[in-house]
Amino acid sequence: MRRLFLYKLCIFLTYFFIFSVPVRAEDGYDLWLRYQPVADLKLRKEYQQQFESLLVESNSPTLNVAAAEVQRGLNGLLAKPIAVSKKITRNTLVIGTPVNSSVIASLGLSERLANVGSEGYLIEKTRFKNRTLTVIAGNSDLGVLYGSFHLLRLLQTQQSLDNLFLSSAPKLQHRVINHWDNLNRVVERGYAGLSLWDWGTLPDYKSQRYVDYARINASLGINGAVINNVNADPRVLSDQFLQKIAALADVFRPYGIKVYLSINYNSPRLFGDLETGDPLDPGVATWWQERTKKVYDYIPDFGGYLVKANSEGQPGPQDYQRDHADGANMLAAALQPFGGVVFWRAFVYQPDIGDRFRGSYDEFKPLDGKFADNVILQVKNGPIDFQPREPYSALFSAMEKTNMMMEFQVTQEYFGFATHLAYQGTLFEESLRTDTFAKGKGSTIGNILEGKVFNTKRTGMAAVVNPGTDRNWTGHPFVQSSWYAFGRMAWDHSITAATAADEWLRMTFTNDKKFIDPVKQFMLYSREAGVNYRSPLGLTHLYSQGDHYGPAPWTANLERPDWTAVYYHRASQEGIGFNRTHSGSNAVAQYPEFLAKQYGDINTVPEDLMLWFHHAPWDHKMRSGRSLWNELVHKYYEGVEQVRNMQREWDGLESLIDAERYAQVKALLKVQERDAVIWRDSCVLYFQTLSGQPIPLGYEKPKYDLAYYKTLARTRYVPEPWHPASASRVLK
Amino acid sequence: MRRLFLYKLCIFLTYFFIFSVPVRAEDGYDLWLRYQPVADLKLRKEYQQQFESLLVESNSPTLNVAAAEVQRGLNGLLAKPIAVSKKITRNTLVIGTPVNSSVIASLGLSERLANVGSEGYLIEKTRFKNRTLTVIAGNSDLGVLYGSFHLLRLLQTQQSLDNLFLSSAPKLQHRVINHWDNLNRVVERGYAGLSLWDWGTLPDYKSQRYVDYARINASLGINGAVINNVNADPRVLSDQFLQKIAALADVFRPYGIKVYLSINYNSPRLFGDLETGDPLDPGVATWWQERTKKVYDYIPDFGGYLVKANSEGQPGPQDYQRDHADGANMLAAALQPFGGVVFWRAFVYQPDIGDRFRGSYDEFKPLDGKFADNVILQVKNGPIDFQPREPYSALFSAMEKTNMMMEFQVTQEYFGFATHLAYQGTLFEESLRTDTFAKGKGSTIGNILEGKVFNTKRTGMAAVVNPGTDRNWTGHPFVQSSWYAFGRMAWDHSITAATAADEWLRMTFTNDKKFIDPVKQFMLYSREAGVNYRSPLGLTHLYSQGDHYGPAPWTANLERPDWTAVYYHRASQEGIGFNRTHSGSNAVAQYPEFLAKQYGDINTVPEDLMLWFHHAPWDHKMRSGRSLWNELVHKYYEGVEQVRNMQREWDGLESLIDAERYAQVKALLKVQERDAVIWRDSCVLYFQTLSGQPIPLGYEKPKYDLAYYKTLARTRYVPEPWHPASASRVLK
Repeated sequence: MRRLFLYKLCIFLTYFFIFSVPVRAEDGYDLWLRYQPVADLKLRKEYQQQFESLLVESNSPTLNVAAAEVQRGLNGLLAKPIAVSKKITRNTLVIGTPVNSSVIASLGLSERLANVGSEGYLIEKTRFKNRTLTVIAGNSDLGVLYGSFHLLRLLQTQQSLDNLFLSSAPKLQHRVINHWDNLNRVVERGYAGLSLWDWGTLPDYKSQRYVDYARINASLGINGAVINNVNADPRVLSDQFLQKIAALADVFRPYGIKVYLSINYNSPRLFGDLETGDPLDPGVATWWQERTKKVYDYIPDFGGYLVKANSEGQPGPQDYQRDHADGANMLAAALQPFGGVVFWRAFVYQPDIGDRFRGSYDEFKPLDGKFADNVILQVKNGPIDFQPREPYSALFSAMEKTNMMMEFQVTQEYFGFATHLAYQGTLFEESLRTDTFAKGKGSTIGNILEGKVFNTKRTGMAAVVNPGTDRNWTGHPFVQSSWYAFGRMAWDHSITAATAADEWLRMTFTNDKKFIDPVKQFMLYSREAGVNYRSPLGLTHLYSQGDHYGPAPWTANLERPDWTAVYYHRASQEGIGFNRTHSGSNAVAQYPEFLAKQYGDINTVPEDLMLWFHHAPWDHKMRSGRSLWNELVHKYYEGVEQVRNMQREWDGLESLIDAERYAQVKALLKVQERDAVIWRDSCVLYFQTLSGQPIPLGYEKPKYDLAYYKTLARTRYVPEPWHPASASRVLK
Repeated sequence: MRRLFLYKLCIFLTYFFIFSVPVRAEDGYDLWLRYQPVADLKLRKEYQQQFESLLVESNSPTLNVAAAEVQRGLNGLLAKPIAVSKKITRNTLVIGTPVNSSVIASLGLSERLANVGSEGYLIEKTRFKNRTLTVIAGNSDLGVLYGSFHLLRLLQTQQSLDNLFLSSAPKLQHRVINHWDNLNRVVERGYAGLSLWDWGTLPDYKSQRYVDYARINASLGINGAVINNVNADPRVLSDQFLQKIAALADVFRPYGIKVYLSINYNSPRLFGDLETGDPLDPGVATWWQERTKKVYDYIPDFGGYLVKANSEGQPGPQDYQRDHADGANMLAAALQPFGGVVFWRAFVYQPDIGDRFRGSYDEFKPLDGKFADNVILQVKNGPIDFQPREPYSALFSAMEKTNMMMEFQVTQEYFGFATHLAYQGTLFEESLRTDTFAKGKGSTIGNILEGKVFNTKRTGMAAVVNPGTDRNWTGHPFVQSSWYAFGRMAWDHSITAATAADEWLRMTFTNDKKFIDPVKQFMLYSREAGVNYRSPLGLTHLYSQGDHYGPAPWTANLERPDWTAVYYHRASQEGIGFNRTHSGSNAVAQYPEFLAKQYGDINTVPEDLMLWFHHAPWDHKMRSGRSLWNELVHKYYEGVEQVRNMQREWDGLESLIDAERYAQVKALLKVQERDAVIWRDSCVLYFQTLSGQPIPLGYEKPKYDLAYYKTLARTRYVPEPWHPASASRVLK
């Protein structure tokens, strides 16, 4: 009788949950924190047996969100609610620190904990009073939160938990994302909706989305967010905005994410309080001290300022005949009493110099050693601007006495916006593993960032990201993968692009090998495809000016030569490429001797960087045996074929994932293929007018002539809503 | 044994569905189509018994979406899957037309069906070959779809289905929503994110959101959407955009929603094809014929053009010394071969006229009878511009020989954007039920729109709506209610605001009386609250210029006097209000005699319209016995108290609905209360400088002085991202 009742109840419950809960479509909102039931039933059972209850012996905002995440994650992954207990029972998961957990205090972990620092953690299976338990232990609640996400990741990716015994600690201190969000909610180079920050309803309404944003980032170990555009609106420091920003900081705080702000260097003038912004003017220093104190009144754990100064029209210390160190140090002094830092961007270039490649180095190298201790120079990976492939910025090997951090770009400004698939984990990996030879072999960018090469004290890695109000945060679902890879590599720069892609795919889509294998494979060449159909062999910046979407390699005669395509490719009837050897701009001399020699010699320079450093004749013989012209054509066609391969691979996967994301990626790959052909044909046809040579046999003929592509570049809709170039185009 | 197995399976399934399906938070995305299980279990059982299977005997795009909606709805509401059968079984629901369903053909419905026209439907419980069945029958598949939504609504609102026997048909032909969406995805007066139309990925990617948009509108019987701003970008007629728009039209088509476009009158010039846009120039007429043919090539069932001409800077026929009829008829001729229509807006006013109130009437009245048959004049409800309360536009009673349709505004341009709660069903009802006495008693606006008063052939109702990419479509969850009420009243103008509110609350939140009763009550006075704290007693347009959010009743001395507040309120030391009687602008004479007399006499004019028509002394005695000044103060304070009442009521409802929407509305009511006080105090303190009289005893004193509010109006962040006024404000 009782069983019958239970049976009926059970039938009822089943119906209730099948039909009452609207099944949420896989719309990408959950990113890699989907916590779907472990598909491998044997493994799920093992996991279920290992995690029967959760013990948290104390509470704090961070410990509470860690416990909530573990519950949410395990409830989903195990398809079974995990009991929250007040003591060790069977197969308990204990999370905490030696200070707030008596169990953890008694496990004898102190020596191992001493090695993981303030943000690291241990995860291990152990025994306590004859009971088996799993422990996530940190020295801080934040370490516990990071460990919790790590454990969940192991289950999400279906890893064996036999002999679970691991520790992890971040290799860099500042793991920061940069939002180029304007206060009017337009996201510069964002392509994924409006800014997440809804200033109209803040501080009163704190959307659930802010919480999920913090969870996503904390799951990667990201611990800082610069929430506004480096082309900064001074109003961000107004009381009205600080009040709103403080509400965001309150949401982020339990997740260990500090808020940073981009500031406008002329704020003292723009607020109408002073006549000058001169960093050596005592009134200016006082203004910043007072305003900074106000910021900390609102946000006691405020992170600091990010500054784009004397770059692309932004004001800076040079407006007052002061240098970058003067400028940065004045702000650093205002932040120092509160423990804040200055991220000072090295992205500068003057319009009148002969080689933009040299700009940043030439301005900053003389200042090495002059920056205050709480200043970190934020350097883009390459010397120009987030191009599909660049050699590394020579500053990394040159600034021995300056704190430096990396600035990558996750948002696809130069990779087809949110409509192309281009996993950038491979770009990050290539950059971080580049050996500069600054202090001999092993002086990789990763090691320099870690402070191991020059013994710098402040370390970090930043990325310009694009999450916006689009339901899936990033527009193209695969932009998420670059965000993921960035976060993982900011924690540990030795993680490979392949590992990050593998984890991301498993967590984001499925653990099914039939899906993972082909998709991971094409993710790993997707960035190279983007290089190939846009600017192979060391070409760069052939974009339609302003929007950076489509090709316009013929662009010339602008007021700013360094904003034209011909400035970069230098193609003529004789050849193509920018001579940066000693017979040219000699930018190559900015690199350590070993590399200067390697890059400076056309016979030793890596071919994928060749035209960055050499102007070579069209008939230059490449390692493939082809002439440079034929190799160039080959690469452009290869890029298109790679996209077509991605399409073919994707087409076969329909049954393996949800319909909604499948259809979206399929549609976007179609757009990408069309765009890749436009890139290829525009470039090949244009360069052909100079090389005078035919497209070799065997390649499909361009469907249209060059005139067609030139018109297209002027009239085509660019998939970025607000870009002025897009708005002013006359469409037919 | 078998039972035990079932029991275990059942336990498994329960767990599976509880823990595997992420429970979607109630984030407002589903609007009134949530289809949650019927909470009244007895009723649910009755419904379950009535609907055991679904029979659809044919298929077509529209019939398919109707069947899918019925399944989705019943599966959710009944918490039990409805079987799809191929013949009548027990308690079958049959949907179709006599043409595509043999069952329906045999039920003898032809006489009743003849009365419901091409879009109407019958729903009834009947018998067929000794079996009980329920039928939804229409003359067209679209009628069937509308009937399907109707049946679902009955279940959603927990209506009894005993003696189910009803029919319904729309009273108006064109039930249209207007989107003021720019092609750069900024929505003018939208306040709810970006435009829904993602031009960057169209036509290749058709987001699920487009489908849900169509479902939502079809559920109300809306059959047209003007998808772009009346301040129209000519590029909307380019091939590139038409291709994208055609993809949207393909999604909307099964749901009976036709696409219309706002056009720029100077398109022939702006495309660079012609030197003129003169409607009487044969080249211009040919240009429009050809372009219109192209539109129909892309979208065979295209609806037509909406035109804002010679209004607020938009081009129009008057630029070529032609009148509105010349302008509209030329376009009408281009559309006529394809069955398209022109919606020609009557919203015009010249800067130099003495009384903007008169503008529209003075321009259009002389043209009555001159418009082509497929032109419909689209007239805003009031003579000015969507103010919280206006008398009706005198055109409605004046244009006896012209097709006219209503233009309402759902988006809250003048009602606190997406941060205030202001259900506008009451405004629509008040407008539609206003008796103009044009042909004697009963000549209501609703009857005029229906064509009953002047025997016009084309009928319709439009509303400017604001759905954008915000997750809940409209920003403030309660803006949804005005969209809902508009749609219901466009179908049947006799539906009351109370009925629409009741239905909307039940479908959107819960059928729980403890929730419905208080919320419905405050919804019904929420619009009046907005009138009271902004512009009571017939005041109007006291807004801060440009943004239309906060108060600035002191605004004067602009280049355009008709864009100042003082132009509208005419307050002085003697009194307040705009004299529109025969001793003033005599706009009152635009109304039929009965109303002209009533409105023209300060003793008979309704007090809530008084200052629209009369300049009255401050000590004018009101019906309450108070002086005008004291009554004005009383109304301003009453508005704030009404908002506070809404807050108090809402505070008591936390346990009755989901946490997310509860918290959002609570936070927004807090903002509204603060804003209402700012409105009240700004207006009362400003008018006090003229009346010279004290705020009567018993009212709380304003916290700040007038100077404070004047500064606030210049410096406060306005919750609309892109508004120039908002962007240029200096914030402190």
